[in-house]
Amino acid sequence: MSTFKRTDRNRIKRKTKRGHYDRSTIYRIIDEGLICHIGFVQNRQPFVIPTIFARVDDSIIIHGSRVSRLLNYIKSRRPVCITVTLLDGLVLARSAFHHSVNYRSVVLFGKGKAIETDEEKLRALEIVTERVMPGRWSDARQPNRKELNATSVVAIPIEEASAKVREGGPIDEAADYALPVWAGVLPIVQHVSAPQSDSRLPAGTATPDYVIDYLKFSRPVVKASY
Amino acid sequence: MSTFKRTDRNRIKRKTKRGHYDRSTIYRIIDEGLICHIGFVQNRQPFVIPTIFARVDDSIIIHGSRVSRLLNYIKSRRPVCITVTLLDGLVLARSAFHHSVNYRSVVLFGKGKAIETDEEKLRALEIVTERVMPGRWSDARQPNRKELNATSVVAIPIEEASAKVREGGPIDEAADYALPVWAGVLPIVQHVSAPQSDSRLPAGTATPDYVIDYLKFSRPVVKASY
Repeated sequence: MSTFKRTDRNRIKRKTKRGHYDRSTIYRIIDEGLICHIGFVQNRQPFVIPTIFARVDDSIIIHGSRVSRLLNYIKSRRPVCITVTLLDGLVLARSAFHHSVNYRSVVLFGKGKAIETDEEKLRALEIVTERVMPGRWSDARQPNRKELNATSVVAIPIEEASAKVREGGPIDEAADYALPVWAGVLPIVQHVSAPQSDSRLPAGTATPDYVIDYLKFSRPVVKASY
Repeated sequence: MSTFKRTDRNRIKRKTKRGHYDRSTIYRIIDEGLICHIGFVQNRQPFVIPTIFARVDDSIIIHGSRVSRLLNYIKSRRPVCITVTLLDGLVLARSAFHHSVNYRSVVLFGKGKAIETDEEKLRALEIVTERVMPGRWSDARQPNRKELNATSVVAIPIEEASAKVREGGPIDEAADYALPVWAGVLPIVQHVSAPQSDSRLPAGTATPDYVIDYLKFSRPVVKASY
C-alpha cells in the first residue's frame, strides 16, 4: 500500500494541511536526511540520540557498536520513534506571531530486530555506506572478522509514519500586508564543501570520482514541490 | 557551577573521549543549533518532535500553540530529553569500519514549567525571535491579545546535560595507512542563502540591515576547536 494508515500515533494534530501520509513524500524526505534522531525510553525517561541511518524498502537500518545502549535497546524490540528533519528556511512574517520555518520532517514508529548473519550484516553495512557516499563500499577495505563481531546492525520495519512539510513565503493577517515591514524567506541548505584529504595519504592518491560527483550533486538545488 | 555532574542519565558511555560536561562547550553547541529534537513519552511510546528553541541561562525556551500536544506535555512537568545536533562533515576512512561523521551534539534533560504572565511570555517570545534573527523583534508587529492567548511558552531548566564531539580526520588501523585508498573529510555546513522577498511587500520596502548581517555572519566559518 502506498499510504500509511492514520492512527493516534502518526496523525498530524496541528496544522493538518502540512501533513502527508503517502510513502512517496515520506521516503523522499527520509532519503534526503543524513542523520536521524531516535527516541527511546528507559525508566520512563525519554532519550533522543542522533545517528546515521539508511532506508531499505519499508525498514530503517541502524548500525553501531555491539555494546551500544541504543543498539541493544532497539534489539530488545521495544517501540522506538525515529525523526528525520530537513530545515529549508527561516520565514519572516510581518507579525512576530506568524514567523515560521520551512521544513520537511518525518516521524516514524516501529520495533527493531537484530540482523544476525554475516551475509545480511555485510549487505546492510554496504547499504548504509553507499547511502552516505555512493561508490565508497567497494573502494574501502572491507570489515574483517573482529570488526564484524564488534558491530551490531538492526532493521526497524516502519509500522506507521507521517511527514509534515511547510514551504513557501510568510502568511500574514490581511491587515498586516500594508505594514512597512520587510517579509520573506531566508533559504537554508546543508552544503558539502571541498574534500580535505587526509595528511597521511600515500603520494599520488587521487580523490575518487564518486567524491567529486557527491559534491556536484549535493550543491544547493531547487527541491521538489509538494 | 560550570560543569554538569555526570550521572547515569547524561554520562557518555561509548567513545568517552568525545564527551564534554562543561557548560561552555555545551552551551556553545546549543546556541549554534537552529532546531532541537524533543523526546517525550505517552503510554510507553517515545515521540521525537523537532522545534525552534532558545536558551536563556540554564533553561531552554519552547513555544507553540496553546493546544499543542508537545507544549501541554512539557507543561505537565514530566521529564523530557532535548537534543541539539550539528553535523560538521563526513569522515571517509580507509576501512569501511572506521568511517564516521564529524558532529557536535548535546543531549539534555529536564522538566518544563509554563511561563504564564503576559510580561514573561512576551519577554520569552522576544528571546526566541531574537535568537533566530537578531534585530527582528522590534521590527515585526508585536503579538496582540488574541495571539498571545493562543501561544504557550514553557521553560525547561536544564538538570543534566552532556555534549559529544567528533572532529578531525579519519583514524585508521596502522596497517591500513599503506592502502591506496583515498581518505579524508567532506565538510558540511548549514548555509543560509540570499533572502527571497515576499511578493506582496509594499513598493520600496528595503531588506533590513539585520537580515544582510545575518547572511554575512552565517557564511561557512572555521568553527572553534575543542
